[in-house]
Amino acid sequence: MRGHEIEQLIKLLGRLPGFGPRSARRIALHLLREPQARLVPLARALDHAAQAVKTCTTCGNLDTSDPCHICTDPVRDRSVVCVVETVGDLWALERAGVHRGVYQVLGGTLSPLAGIGPEDLNIASLLDRLECGGVREVILALGATVEGATTMHWLMDKLSQYEGVAVSRVAQGVPVGGALDVLDDGTLAAALGARRPA
Amino acid sequence: MRGHEIEQLIKLLGRLPGFGPRSARRIALHLLREPQARLVPLARALDHAAQAVKTCTTCGNLDTSDPCHICTDPVRDRSVVCVVETVGDLWALERAGVHRGVYQVLGGTLSPLAGIGPEDLNIASLLDRLECGGVREVILALGATVEGATTMHWLMDKLSQYEGVAVSRVAQGVPVGGALDVLDDGTLAAALGARRPA
Repeated sequence: MRGHEIEQLIKLLGRLPGFGPRSARRIALHLLREPQARLVPLARALDHAAQAVKTCTTCGNLDTSDPCHICTDPVRDRSVVCVVETVGDLWALERAGVHRGVYQVLGGTLSPLAGIGPEDLNIASLLDRLECGGVREVILALGATVEGATTMHWLMDKLSQYEGVAVSRVAQGVPVGGALDVLDDGTLAAALGARRPA
Repeated sequence: MRGHEIEQLIKLLGRLPGFGPRSARRIALHLLREPQARLVPLARALDHAAQAVKTCTTCGNLDTSDPCHICTDPVRDRSVVCVVETVGDLWALERAGVHRGVYQVLGGTLSPLAGIGPEDLNIASLLDRLECGGVREVILALGATVEGATTMHWLMDKLSQYEGVAVSRVAQGVPVGGALDVLDDGTLAAALGARRPA
């Protein structure tokens, strides 16, 4: 009963992660109620992003310049490379402002079951950076999942061949602000195992 | 640290109902990861919708034609007008396929506190339709909220001056498939008060 353009919009919105038909309809209606104030600006922002955004050929970050702002920032320490799974992880570390070096975005994790091998991730470009020299530390900031651990161990093995490059991994333990009694056994074991003198 | 185009996209996505900064970032990343497959089609769908979608001057529905598909459908009964608050309510009734007449979308509810009076809603065009004749029933399908009830009583009063036009309201009671013990007192009272011989 609705025009084709409305149906198409609802269909595409319904494909977004976390969306179902109901939320797609709600968002479509919200946009259509005020086309000039809501729909048109969003269409324009998507258009501009589609034209401007590139993947950084150095680190894999998404940005409007290639190399990205982080790779070209003169203040950042190029000798410390933080390896993350996704651009979302990179953004999270940048929001926290806790890493002053540069990044390498793998674009996923190794997963033999899903058929994702080293050649499917941005690992070759990481090794290139190490070959070129100047890197003194690689920080593995991968998720504490089975795939993350698999990828981390594979990378630790691979990176051990580069002399003069220290390889570290982010600590596991109790999240800051978190209560102990809601944590899973794995996190509790990791937190206890990695205990440090108080 | 991110380019302007990415920040702008996240900002606009974050203004959608039910969105926060976190979900806006997640959706932006999802779209940016596959620009050609995800971002560009969505931008295009929004563009097409912005150009094609109009408000029906007869009933207030959103559609690609004016009058809308429902108002021009020869099969529908123009003598029964169902009054709803929003286009979302109209869509819900159409999905259920329970109304074979036409609609009148008010575009909201009366709310003296929020300064929304009869002149802010599509009430004049409803009265115009009644003046023109040919309408034998008006069904008030408004939400069971304070504002919905206020609007309904105001309309019942207003519509009583049209002779030959029956005014009805949707029933209140136990939702189909619903258990009694989770319902609020108001719904239970309405369901009991409107009991019918079994």
